[in-house]
Amino acid sequence: MPDKRFFRKSGTYSIADLAARVGGELLHCRDPERIIEDIAAVEEATAGDICFVENRRYVGALASSAASVCILPRNIADRAPDSLALIVSDRPRRAFAKIANLFYPEERAPTGVAASAAVDAVAHLGEGVSIGPGAVISAGAKLGDGVTVGANSFVGENVEVGAGSVVGENASLSHCLIGERVVIYPGARIGTCGFGFEADEAGVIKMPQLGRAIIEDDVEIGANSCVDRGSGPDTVIGRGTMIDNLVQIGHNVQVGKGCIICGQAGIAGSAKIGNYVVIAGQVGVAGHIELGDGVQVAAQSGVTSTTAPGEKIGGAPAVPMRDFRRQVAAIKSLGRRNKDLEK
Amino acid sequence: MPDKRFFRKSGTYSIADLAARVGGELLHCRDPERIIEDIAAVEEATAGDICFVENRRYVGALASSAASVCILPRNIADRAPDSLALIVSDRPRRAFAKIANLFYPEERAPTGVAASAAVDAVAHLGEGVSIGPGAVISAGAKLGDGVTVGANSFVGENVEVGAGSVVGENASLSHCLIGERVVIYPGARIGTCGFGFEADEAGVIKMPQLGRAIIEDDVEIGANSCVDRGSGPDTVIGRGTMIDNLVQIGHNVQVGKGCIICGQAGIAGSAKIGNYVVIAGQVGVAGHIELGDGVQVAAQSGVTSTTAPGEKIGGAPAVPMRDFRRQVAAIKSLGRRNKDLEK
Amino acid sequence: MPDKRFFRKSGTYSIADLAARVGGELLHCRDPERIIEDIAAVEEATAGDICFVENRRYVGALASSAASVCILPRNIADRAPDSLALIVSDRPRRAFAKIANLFYPEERAPTGVAASAAVDAVAHLGEGVSIGPGAVISAGAKLGDGVTVGANSFVGENVEVGAGSVVGENASLSHCLIGERVVIYPGARIGTCGFGFEADEAGVIKMPQLGRAIIEDDVEIGANSCVDRGSGPDTVIGRGTMIDNLVQIGHNVQVGKGCIICGQAGIAGSAKIGNYVVIAGQVGVAGHIELGDGVQVAAQSGVTSTTAPGEKIGGAPAVPMRDFRRQVAAIKSLGRRNKDLEK
Repeated sequence: MPDKRFFRKSGTYSIADLAARVGGELLHCRDPERIIEDIAAVEEATAGDICFVENRRYVGALASSAASVCILPRNIADRAPDSLALIVSDRPRRAFAKIANLFYPEERAPTGVAASAAVDAVAHLGEGVSIGPGAVISAGAKLGDGVTVGANSFVGENVEVGAGSVVGENASLSHCLIGERVVIYPGARIGTCGFGFEADEAGVIKMPQLGRAIIEDDVEIGANSCVDRGSGPDTVIGRGTMIDNLVQIGHNVQVGKGCIICGQAGIAGSAKIGNYVVIAGQVGVAGHIELGDGVQVAAQSGVTSTTAPGEKIGGAPAVPMRDFRRQVAAIKSLGRRNKDLEK
Repeated sequence: MPDKRFFRKSGTYSIADLAARVGGELLHCRDPERIIEDIAAVEEATAGDICFVENRRYVGALASSAASVCILPRNIADRAPDSLALIVSDRPRRAFAKIANLFYPEERAPTGVAASAAVDAVAHLGEGVSIGPGAVISAGAKLGDGVTVGANSFVGENVEVGAGSVVGENASLSHCLIGERVVIYPGARIGTCGFGFEADEAGVIKMPQLGRAIIEDDVEIGANSCVDRGSGPDTVIGRGTMIDNLVQIGHNVQVGKGCIICGQAGIAGSAKIGNYVVIAGQVGVAGHIELGDGVQVAAQSGVTSTTAPGEKIGGAPAVPMRDFRRQVAAIKSLGRRNKDLEK
Repeated sequence: MPDKRFFRKSGTYSIADLAARVGGELLHCRDPERIIEDIAAVEEATAGDICFVENRRYVGALASSAASVCILPRNIADRAPDSLALIVSDRPRRAFAKIANLFYPEERAPTGVAASAAVDAVAHLGEGVSIGPGAVISAGAKLGDGVTVGANSFVGENVEVGAGSVVGENASLSHCLIGERVVIYPGARIGTCGFGFEADEAGVIKMPQLGRAIIEDDVEIGANSCVDRGSGPDTVIGRGTMIDNLVQIGHNVQVGKGCIICGQAGIAGSAKIGNYVVIAGQVGVAGHIELGDGVQVAAQSGVTSTTAPGEKIGGAPAVPMRDFRRQVAAIKSLGRRNKDLEK
């Protein structure tokens, strides 16, 4: 059960209601009007809880679960005890996520402007915004309805933040346009100056970075991640893309819709990432290359060349996963062969 | 000599006192009551200073040192000049660290609440806390005795920080319980929302992240590092673990006691790290795997499978160090062989 | 054309004036006094704009450009349309950068101290400083003339920041001396405690970190990057060095002049980096080694040994680039050979 100090539960729901909300078929359910009180992991659930299992691996836990309802795929429904009501779903985890959001909706900070916030006289605040203590909203900035800006964050001049977006604590936004329902986690830096200059013996001349960072609707950008603004073109993060913590996005990068970019990955300047691309943790993507729609990149890979849509790649330099697995096998066997020679 | 603008020296100590405090035997010491004024590196020490040498490599520096006392292992004591008083120790560096802490104890910020701090009326502050300018202490937060919260940091609702802990500047804490004598460095993010969601063509559904981040006593978490809270279970950092800068700890990760996690390492969700594990810089640890007690991981490795206690591993994917070294040798010789073919 | 909400243009310039400022020869120019209004990319330029092309690859774009002036190397001057005035330059990109800075000079925040800034009574502020809302300037800190400190940043006790330097938002400085015209981007941490301690079963003893971070003139340090102070010696970043985002610089590291250190690179404690060294993204440099002047390190490399001046290296462990390329080729062919065996 989530710690009540940190998470507030919202309501209870009948089994029938929950099944309907996820479009799942009810099985073994003697009392569809029974009230469900909370969500829980299958092993920890008690009476009144709803849980889920995804596949056969959890059949043991399922058999001994004390939950009142379980969401599961049809092919293991017969492994559940008779006492357990079932909601059948092709995608139990996704269904559970929906129900978890019912019980624990995203909490919003209280509406209003904290006394210690510094809101410029010519900033525009929408209805129902929440501005935390010490937050700074600069001249010309526009915050849409219901926007939250966390404590001690900075919203620069003329920056726009769309309705329903949340900016976490200690974050900084400048030279950027943020869509609706975007979440910027604490410490993220959006729209900072890109790494562009001309260097030689005579010294460094910075190239003015005159583009913007465009963050489309429903994007999330993780804690302490950085999205530089463009150098002339814009840097763009496409709708619904999820970016984890400590990720670096260089200037002019274009990321498509619905991408997933995991922790500590880095995308160098002017790279173009398609839609629904998955980039695992600590990956590096070289500048000026293109990753097609649906490309998947294994963790720690170094992607150095343009990659066709749908490819799954790994290694440094990255190659198709099948080749990468062969390379790994070959290196392992080389290691063993050298061992034989040592004998 | 440390720059007096930044470091305040505390007291002087007699040679006898210093030897006693580190449990070291005094040798060649004509005047145990002689007062020592400061610490110094062996090459830079002058009269009145105490220094240390760890091994034979420093015998030359030892011979010409102007220090008044030197901490060293017994096996090089006869290489020291007669004029130098000696404190014999099995672990000279550790002994020197103790003495350095005597001369330069951790400085605490002045007690009190800065005028510009925003402390909620229902926060609980222990005795002798120090709250810097612009710091935000939210409703229900509990700070133990002697806690320091640096300028412009954020302590979220109901967060607890144990006695004697220090939160650096511009850090953010939410959904977490922090033990005693913990140090959170500037810009660290603790308890942020984990990277959990269900994604498909229909869009992303976030899985509410309903666990906490538990930081046990005596832990240190480096600048701009991130520790996500759990998704349901907690994320736990065990007692005395030291985490360097820019490290990413995913949701549900459990780190044991006394671990060392170096800069820019990343540990993916639900990994379990034993006690006294050492993870070098830029390492990635995959999700859901387990590293046994005392495992050591070489820099930049990618750990993809569960590893038995005491193993030393390296490479990506990581293998036992002996095998990794063979792999490296084999690859090097392959590179050379290809060179021959080019001729 | 840059978004006027974020970028303010400064003046117009005659073609003759622009050519003189970059020391370029005018060709095909019927009216040297013609006024140029703005900069633009070659493909997007319209009448009144100045653009540049670097080499033959852009000859097509050049031929159809609507710009009024183009900076280009002499060897493609004959490929430009007659209607286009030309400024001939050996280094068109560098020349363009100079001109871009004329049109879009670095903007400075308005002079003055924000009402919500916390400036200690014994801090010293130079002429024309700009202190943002919520910024904290501690006792004894010295800010030179024209220094900007962004919103909610922290400048610790006795820290010095030289004339004309800019500290971005939410950054933290302690135990450091910052030169002139330095730029510290948002969220950077300078002078934090290094990762130094003695650990064993009995627990951890921290080694007091008694050195400073010295940031020389004209250095830039990227968003959310960390530069630890020295442990006794100083950490030094040499004049004109450019550091990108999310970079980690360990204690006692010495970086020379004019280096370029790209995003997410990490340099471990006590490493010594020469002048004009280029370190690409996600590189790791081991502690206590030395990189000679002009060394270039490929992305994601792991540098584990001292490297002679001028070497170009890659791989992990890093080897000369020629060898690294051979290794990569050999591994690729191994992968293919294993594929044959599978048939």
